[in-house]
Amino acid sequence: MNILITGGAGFLGLRLAKTLLNDGVDGVAASRLVLADRATGPDFDDPRVSYAIGDIADPAFVNRIVTDDIDIVFHLAAVVSGQAEADFDLGLRVNIDASRLVLNACRHNADHPRVVFTSSVAVFGPVAADETIGDATAVDPRSSYGMEKASAELLLKEYSRRGFVDGIVLRLPTISVRPGRPNQAASSFASGIIREPLSGSGSPCPVPGSTGLWLLSPRRAVEAMVTAASLDTSALGTARVINLPGISVTVDEMLAVLADVGGPHARALVTAAPDPAVEKIVASWPRSWDHDRAVGLGFCGDANFRAIVDAFVEDDLDGQVAAVAV
Amino acid sequence: MNILITGGAGFLGLRLAKTLLNDGVDGVAASRLVLADRATGPDFDDPRVSYAIGDIADPAFVNRIVTDDIDIVFHLAAVVSGQAEADFDLGLRVNIDASRLVLNACRHNADHPRVVFTSSVAVFGPVAADETIGDATAVDPRSSYGMEKASAELLLKEYSRRGFVDGIVLRLPTISVRPGRPNQAASSFASGIIREPLSGSGSPCPVPGSTGLWLLSPRRAVEAMVTAASLDTSALGTARVINLPGISVTVDEMLAVLADVGGPHARALVTAAPDPAVEKIVASWPRSWDHDRAVGLGFCGDANFRAIVDAFVEDDLDGQVAAVAV
Repeated sequence: MNILITGGAGFLGLRLAKTLLNDGVDGVAASRLVLADRATGPDFDDPRVSYAIGDIADPAFVNRIVTDDIDIVFHLAAVVSGQAEADFDLGLRVNIDASRLVLNACRHNADHPRVVFTSSVAVFGPVAADETIGDATAVDPRSSYGMEKASAELLLKEYSRRGFVDGIVLRLPTISVRPGRPNQAASSFASGIIREPLSGSGSPCPVPGSTGLWLLSPRRAVEAMVTAASLDTSALGTARVINLPGISVTVDEMLAVLADVGGPHARALVTAAPDPAVEKIVASWPRSWDHDRAVGLGFCGDANFRAIVDAFVEDDLDGQVAAVAV
Repeated sequence: MNILITGGAGFLGLRLAKTLLNDGVDGVAASRLVLADRATGPDFDDPRVSYAIGDIADPAFVNRIVTDDIDIVFHLAAVVSGQAEADFDLGLRVNIDASRLVLNACRHNADHPRVVFTSSVAVFGPVAADETIGDATAVDPRSSYGMEKASAELLLKEYSRRGFVDGIVLRLPTISVRPGRPNQAASSFASGIIREPLSGSGSPCPVPGSTGLWLLSPRRAVEAMVTAASLDTSALGTARVINLPGISVTVDEMLAVLADVGGPHARALVTAAPDPAVEKIVASWPRSWDHDRAVGLGFCGDANFRAIVDAFVEDDLDGQVAAVAV
């Protein structure tokens, strides 16, 4: 089982790599794992792992990493929403053109590999309050990032229809709780308001407590990618796009869990800092999802937000929550 | 009013050119009209018209034709469905990449031009018998051509959302009656069964008489493009895609009109030649359309199929129907 992860040195790519090295795919261990990215990540100290460093939008690099023996490609490399909005050409180049390069390289492999592509609920536009989003709901992106993901989805579906690859698109809910630093994404606060206080730092909250979010933990996101890698696609037909099951929570509910896990001092570290721009974007995201199909295919959401925070503390804080500052 | 038509030497491009030269757009005459294509068409003998010959997927050519003074671009250049299916790379190159080149050249113009882009109902997949298709119905292409048109639609919407162009997508029903020769399109018979008999030639009909079609005449298609060129887009918001109003007819109804216009001898020139492959494709096309929005925006369909055939006789046969062969 030879596996390529593009964006392999990123936060989800590294977690996926660890899972693949430990558990493999459907019981089959990874024999070779290539992590393609713009820079190397941590040393795995495992002879199966190698980094391939280059530009994912460079055809020569892509042809070099999609070797003939690759069985599975996890195509995670992307420019995030804020960056795609700020640098239009870069977004097109990485989120569309590089995706096509990867698909095309796979097409010219003798055994057309499984391709697992991570897309986003940003492909959707504002919907009526009573509308439920399913896998077949019309996309209507309102951001360059969303448009680029929707374009790459169309390519992957068509390359699969023609038998050039055996592809699956996973549309990720907002990932929370992300480790690391705040980023430019409008959803950055959805991790920040938990991550920062549990580490003893303050965190501004740009939206009202009543704001609803649709969340998936990093742990479940990685599980979903592994599930997708061995899914029987004959049952999918042309319906290659799957909205992953998230959980629907409000910011107030998230903060209540924060208080439970970190105590009132942690909760007090989150301060209201209304940002109408962020509020507008977040309010436009769909809240009601039908994920029966995803669940039927074996994808799991999180039990509740407490489970998400507990997993974060375990995976990213070594089980330690910051003590009260006195 | 400086106008560029890509695919300008094609059948619809030439008709559009004539209309623009005679009537202009919203009462404003075309002062300069560039017809870009791979080869020249007929001589217009009009100092306003020039041909630009080149490859629409060549960035240098596109940058050369989208000059700074262009006010309107009609982007009609495309690889048709049969060809896009047979030559995947060519379809991607012309139907997606060239569209992006055109949009990008417009983006770098000081006055971002109006772009009218012709798409197709091939962006849709099979739908339930009782489902009505509207402008916001989810695309689900089942052909490379349909995927490519859907991708170009996403690009045009995004370039418009960002203010880089002021774009409109017109999704054309099956155009009937097309002049010229049969082509590789599955819908070729929808013109052939009228055009050939009215010229005294036999025409095979690959589908049962009960087969339903959704048609638009070339005359109305050209009118729609001109309407789109001066449409007030502020009313459209992000909803830049319009399914043009067609008429729903069966093949039997078309053949009855043929008999009315051309006589029983013309009708007798159409012979049943069942082609399960064509039948399957045509049967998968949606038949029920909601075009209230298009009509509200000023787009007109044909009155009925008789009106379409009368227009064909007038426009393409100089008013003459082939006499009975004796």
